[in-house]
Amino acid sequence: MPSPLDTYRIAQEPFYRPTGQETALYAHAYAHRLPMILKGPTGCGKTRFVEYMAWKLGLPLVTLACNEDMTASDLVGRYLLDAAGTAWHDGPLTLAVRHGGICYLDEIVEARQDTTVVIHPLTDARRILPLDKKGEVVRAHPDFQLVVSYNPGYQSSAKDLKPSTRQRFVALDFDYPDAEREAEIVAHEAGIDAALADRLVRIAHSSRELKRHGLDEGVSTRMLIYAGILIRDGVSPVDSCDMTMTRALTDDPDMAAALRALVDANLE
Amino acid sequence: MPSPLDTYRIAQEPFYRPTGQETALYAHAYAHRLPMILKGPTGCGKTRFVEYMAWKLGLPLVTLACNEDMTASDLVGRYLLDAAGTAWHDGPLTLAVRHGGICYLDEIVEARQDTTVVIHPLTDARRILPLDKKGEVVRAHPDFQLVVSYNPGYQSSAKDLKPSTRQRFVALDFDYPDAEREAEIVAHEAGIDAALADRLVRIAHSSRELKRHGLDEGVSTRMLIYAGILIRDGVSPVDSCDMTMTRALTDDPDMAAALRALVDANLE
Amino acid sequence: MPSPLDTYRIAQEPFYRPTGQETALYAHAYAHRLPMILKGPTGCGKTRFVEYMAWKLGLPLVTLACNEDMTASDLVGRYLLDAAGTAWHDGPLTLAVRHGGICYLDEIVEARQDTTVVIHPLTDARRILPLDKKGEVVRAHPDFQLVVSYNPGYQSSAKDLKPSTRQRFVALDFDYPDAEREAEIVAHEAGIDAALADRLVRIAHSSRELKRHGLDEGVSTRMLIYAGILIRDGVSPVDSCDMTMTRALTDDPDMAAALRALVDANLE
Amino acid sequence: MPSPLDTYRIAQEPFYRPTGQETALYAHAYAHRLPMILKGPTGCGKTRFVEYMAWKLGLPLVTLACNEDMTASDLVGRYLLDAAGTAWHDGPLTLAVRHGGICYLDEIVEARQDTTVVIHPLTDARRILPLDKKGEVVRAHPDFQLVVSYNPGYQSSAKDLKPSTRQRFVALDFDYPDAEREAEIVAHEAGIDAALADRLVRIAHSSRELKRHGLDEGVSTRMLIYAGILIRDGVSPVDSCDMTMTRALTDDPDMAAALRALVDANLE
Amino acid sequence: MPSPLDTYRIAQEPFYRPTGQETALYAHAYAHRLPMILKGPTGCGKTRFVEYMAWKLGLPLVTLACNEDMTASDLVGRYLLDAAGTAWHDGPLTLAVRHGGICYLDEIVEARQDTTVVIHPLTDARRILPLDKKGEVVRAHPDFQLVVSYNPGYQSSAKDLKPSTRQRFVALDFDYPDAEREAEIVAHEAGIDAALADRLVRIAHSSRELKRHGLDEGVSTRMLIYAGILIRDGVSPVDSCDMTMTRALTDDPDMAAALRALVDANLE
Amino acid sequence: MPSPLDTYRIAQEPFYRPTGQETALYAHAYAHRLPMILKGPTGCGKTRFVEYMAWKLGLPLVTLACNEDMTASDLVGRYLLDAAGTAWHDGPLTLAVRHGGICYLDEIVEARQDTTVVIHPLTDARRILPLDKKGEVVRAHPDFQLVVSYNPGYQSSAKDLKPSTRQRFVALDFDYPDAEREAEIVAHEAGIDAALADRLVRIAHSSRELKRHGLDEGVSTRMLIYAGILIRDGVSPVDSCDMTMTRALTDDPDMAAALRALVDANLE
Repeated sequence: MPSPLDTYRIAQEPFYRPTGQETALYAHAYAHRLPMILKGPTGCGKTRFVEYMAWKLGLPLVTLACNEDMTASDLVGRYLLDAAGTAWHDGPLTLAVRHGGICYLDEIVEARQDTTVVIHPLTDARRILPLDKKGEVVRAHPDFQLVVSYNPGYQSSAKDLKPSTRQRFVALDFDYPDAEREAEIVAHEAGIDAALADRLVRIAHSSRELKRHGLDEGVSTRMLIYAGILIRDGVSPVDSCDMTMTRALTDDPDMAAALRALVDANLE
Repeated sequence: MPSPLDTYRIAQEPFYRPTGQETALYAHAYAHRLPMILKGPTGCGKTRFVEYMAWKLGLPLVTLACNEDMTASDLVGRYLLDAAGTAWHDGPLTLAVRHGGICYLDEIVEARQDTTVVIHPLTDARRILPLDKKGEVVRAHPDFQLVVSYNPGYQSSAKDLKPSTRQRFVALDFDYPDAEREAEIVAHEAGIDAALADRLVRIAHSSRELKRHGLDEGVSTRMLIYAGILIRDGVSPVDSCDMTMTRALTDDPDMAAALRALVDANLE
Repeated sequence: MPSPLDTYRIAQEPFYRPTGQETALYAHAYAHRLPMILKGPTGCGKTRFVEYMAWKLGLPLVTLACNEDMTASDLVGRYLLDAAGTAWHDGPLTLAVRHGGICYLDEIVEARQDTTVVIHPLTDARRILPLDKKGEVVRAHPDFQLVVSYNPGYQSSAKDLKPSTRQRFVALDFDYPDAEREAEIVAHEAGIDAALADRLVRIAHSSRELKRHGLDEGVSTRMLIYAGILIRDGVSPVDSCDMTMTRALTDDPDMAAALRALVDANLE
Repeated sequence: MPSPLDTYRIAQEPFYRPTGQETALYAHAYAHRLPMILKGPTGCGKTRFVEYMAWKLGLPLVTLACNEDMTASDLVGRYLLDAAGTAWHDGPLTLAVRHGGICYLDEIVEARQDTTVVIHPLTDARRILPLDKKGEVVRAHPDFQLVVSYNPGYQSSAKDLKPSTRQRFVALDFDYPDAEREAEIVAHEAGIDAALADRLVRIAHSSRELKRHGLDEGVSTRMLIYAGILIRDGVSPVDSCDMTMTRALTDDPDMAAALRALVDANLE
Repeated sequence: MPSPLDTYRIAQEPFYRPTGQETALYAHAYAHRLPMILKGPTGCGKTRFVEYMAWKLGLPLVTLACNEDMTASDLVGRYLLDAAGTAWHDGPLTLAVRHGGICYLDEIVEARQDTTVVIHPLTDARRILPLDKKGEVVRAHPDFQLVVSYNPGYQSSAKDLKPSTRQRFVALDFDYPDAEREAEIVAHEAGIDAALADRLVRIAHSSRELKRHGLDEGVSTRMLIYAGILIRDGVSPVDSCDMTMTRALTDDPDMAAALRALVDANLE
Repeated sequence: MPSPLDTYRIAQEPFYRPTGQETALYAHAYAHRLPMILKGPTGCGKTRFVEYMAWKLGLPLVTLACNEDMTASDLVGRYLLDAAGTAWHDGPLTLAVRHGGICYLDEIVEARQDTTVVIHPLTDARRILPLDKKGEVVRAHPDFQLVVSYNPGYQSSAKDLKPSTRQRFVALDFDYPDAEREAEIVAHEAGIDAALADRLVRIAHSSRELKRHGLDEGVSTRMLIYAGILIRDGVSPVDSCDMTMTRALTDDPDMAAALRALVDANLE
């Protein structure tokens, strides 16, 4: 029987290299449907991880990128007018709650208060979602789990999770993979040899040192993959790194020079 | 005869351990339908208490998590368009007022002014709810009672209840249960033995001391239950507490170290 | 013939004890349909007074609690869509203007400017309400009167009535009743004997002294009635006063102790 | 033939006592349809004057009280849905422009910018009103004139008329009538004798001195009329003045005492 | 064949006295459809000039007074519901783009950002207007030209044209006409003799000196015309100038006295 | 078969002179559908470049000028009411994602957060666009690519791209062409001889020096083309440059004099 969540199923195994026991811990939490926070810096693989777990557990994954313009109705649903008058349309959160799946609220701290409050009764013993506008209380499907993420190094205190929200979740920390695993990922995703991947990863690790000197973010794994793809394609290593790392990371000429020096030192 | 409030009935007895005469006092207040404020810190059991009382009194419970994006129409109702034109749809507050039940406004201080003002004529001798947009004055069902909650330690003065609102209510104070009762709750809810529950509770009590040193909130009873569940499941006590307490409570490395030391001291 | 204002009629005499010649002065003002401001502190009986006068004069009473989210359309009316297209629906103010009755805008200073401005042509010699969106000028029914209230001790200067609005009204001052009358009211409403009522009133009068020492509001008559009801019901006097006065009035431990001392001094 | 402006006609001559040649000057300006600003303090008779002129010139008068929540659509019109789909409904300004009459924007400085800008092409040689949403340019009816008012002593510089708006108008200044004329008005409108009217006017003139000592506005002519009505009705002069002047003008006890002293000095 | 722009055609030649070669330069710019900025102080004749050029070039003129409440949809168009469902209605800018004519955005700096951005693709080589909501890209009619105006002496830096917008236009500067031409205009428009017009113009020129001493704007040509009309009508010169200049320009008694002295010096 | 993107195809080759290997690098990035940032100052040719590449690659180009009033629905689509009820209408981004083409978000930093967040899942391995309101996840057409632009010299730090957005893109830098190429472009586009084009370009280069002395932007290539067109047309060089450069660039008399001196020095 087709389900409204079929469009949210993940067709093939996402490429993911575990860095510890995070898959086992997640599975334990899911077994009890404990709400989960994934914490960690931008681009370290939180989204990929939850996709991998959804695939592994055979669950649909409804991903919502939180932002301050998203309303509670965007999550929960609303009345829409059709030929027979207004009819209720479940929002993506309600679909996951009703039909069973993981609902993943990415960067939860960006959401407005009404969004945050809507999830409270889903994250305690009640496991309900009141649709106030419809006059219905949806009891969560046995498969439903709520997962949220945020970047702790990033938020101002004004945009922190309220304690009354935080303490409803269990939490896993994420970070960039270590050099060896990162090289393995880059080689696999960009289709390049291990030696080149190693050298690219060395650039990334050096660049992350520059964060202490005013760079907002270091080179991410994704940037290394982009660089590897272009080099494989025949673009010169210097041009590839300029396009995928230096120009993408900074507008500051001095910082750009520092990054280019890192590239030269590792790829010449 | 089915009632629109049936979806709001509580099917089975919520687990609740009274800590004093709060159930008797609540029953007296309900006997006269006095509006009630439940005051106390996050996660100390206010929501569970009102669920328990609703179950005990055999009343439907309409719970609304207040927030600054909720409008008076979200409470009271609105006109919606259907095949025969616009028709009025009672909001959740109006349903409770009209058909009889407890309406529970959780974290009332988060609500906007129009929400707060809407409840005034329900909380004095009039017991009416004017539906201005519909041109109807709903007189409250004999079973109707209004209950609100807030966390006094939390609000800035900008988000305090106005005196003209406060003095319409009688009030009950809540706090975390004492150690013995808390252990009993944790053992029951997590399905663990009393000895482990005791040790977990000791962690929580020590953590609440850290609130004086910069921790926003101490370990709550809910966190202890989550930890107990994972330990029962075979996850190591240290990992369980890391996931359910330390990482969930703080992003600060020093505070996290202090919490881990508490865990080690009590669970090793 | 049924009138749309029937739902706004007051079925039985509200309990009201005059404190001076306010009923006579109001009747004179009503005889000339002069717009009226009722000034006084929270809970001193302004709403009850206007209900009493409406009942005494045999007039429907449309009460609107002003707030900053209320729009002019909420007062005046709007077009709504029904089976035959859009049709105009009079708002509550328009109903009172058109069909004759008292329209009472409670806490007028909380209203937005468009609301305040809407009433101007009703409060001078014109006695008209222009429905700009409908292209109609409603001339007030001979029975129509506008009454507004506000709490002068309360507002910041930013939320004061504009002089151009104030000077359109005649005004009556209200205050808490004197001790004797207050005891009479409490005894009548709570169903307790005069001696207990006297002692409760003494608590209230002492508490009002605490306003000079940081308490936002003293114990109101309504709180005394709630306390009396619970005591009559068998709840201990100390618990009754704690629930209806101390906890309802303050979250500050020192202030709560001061209030409890007042209770002990008068009820022991 | 009925006109949509019939509802805006003034049925009987408003009571107005000219204070200078303002009626002649207005008539000259109207003869050339020059846009007109009426300047003067609150309650000095600007609205009454424009009503009188409209009556005298036999013109409908569309009065709009400007406020910051009024949109350009409230003036100009909008599409509304009816049985045959959406249809355009002229706003009150458009009605006056199209069918000929005076449109009076009271307290123009309170309006938002889009409102102010909408009137520009009506106030130069073009005399047009573009209905942008409808794709129509309405050329003003030969009888149309625009009149606006504001209170120069009142506005903050932030709420001043922009020079580009001001210089499109000719202007007339208004002030309170002199003592003799004011007494004549009060006697006529309140139905009291000249002696009492004189004494009431003396109170008003003295009260206006208090404006230099912190009173926002002095006693207006309208207040004197209200006081006169109540005295004629049998209310004591002191109570009448308390209700219509002192309590209406101030919440400050010292200022109220000063006003009561003025009343006593003149009415004893 | 009737065009939706017919309502925007100018029926008769607007009165305009060229002050330099501005008509020739405009014609050159129009020949290449270069987007045009008209810069100059309030009331110096920018609007009249563009009307004159539109008349001379035989083009419809769609004038839009920019303001911060105008949305992109007000310019571009929107879906409206009619009997057969929603249908797209071109906004005034789209009408000009599609059917060919001058679109004149008066006081462009008052517009919101979305309005300003909408015109960018019309002002470079593309000459297109994307209707994103309709999924259509309108290529500009060969006759279409965009003209905007602003007052450089007026804006705060916060309300300046962004460089990325400015550099898309060619620009013409405007200023008040010199004394001789101004007198000619006043005589023609007010129907008065040259001697009186000269004397009125002298008042205006002197008044513009007062701008250095705190007057926001000097007497404009339009005010002189109004004064001339009233004098011709028999109103005394002093009253005429008071009504059309002094009271219209200032609320400040000292400044008013200075202006009246100017009038006396020139008209006595 | 007609596609909804046909209206977005570029009919003829846009005039573009490559300044380096930017076309080759873009082609490599497109071959892997890497999301692309184009960085560079206003008017240096970023928009022209993406048009040229779209034409060269035979792809439709959907251009959206970002601004703070653009909502996510403006990009993604919305429900609209038609004869059979509401129907979903793809927004321009969704059209490009679904049917294959380049979607170009011009000045991305001007967009609101919800817009920026909407593109995240299109810029990583997922290449999906969730239509939350419709309950559909659109997988990107194989031809789809996302391109964004911004001006790094321009933004305040408050309007910078968030690192979590930046690192999803590869980047190309753009700048004004060198003198020789700029002269070639001006000669070609304005239809003037090389000598005049050289002299105009010299003005532009000198003007860009003035940016250090308070000019917001120097003379752009587009302004040179406009000047060339007018000179070719017979307008005097001084008038042409005044209209296309000096008056368009500045309102400051000193800066205008400096620019006019530059013109005189190069064109006399």
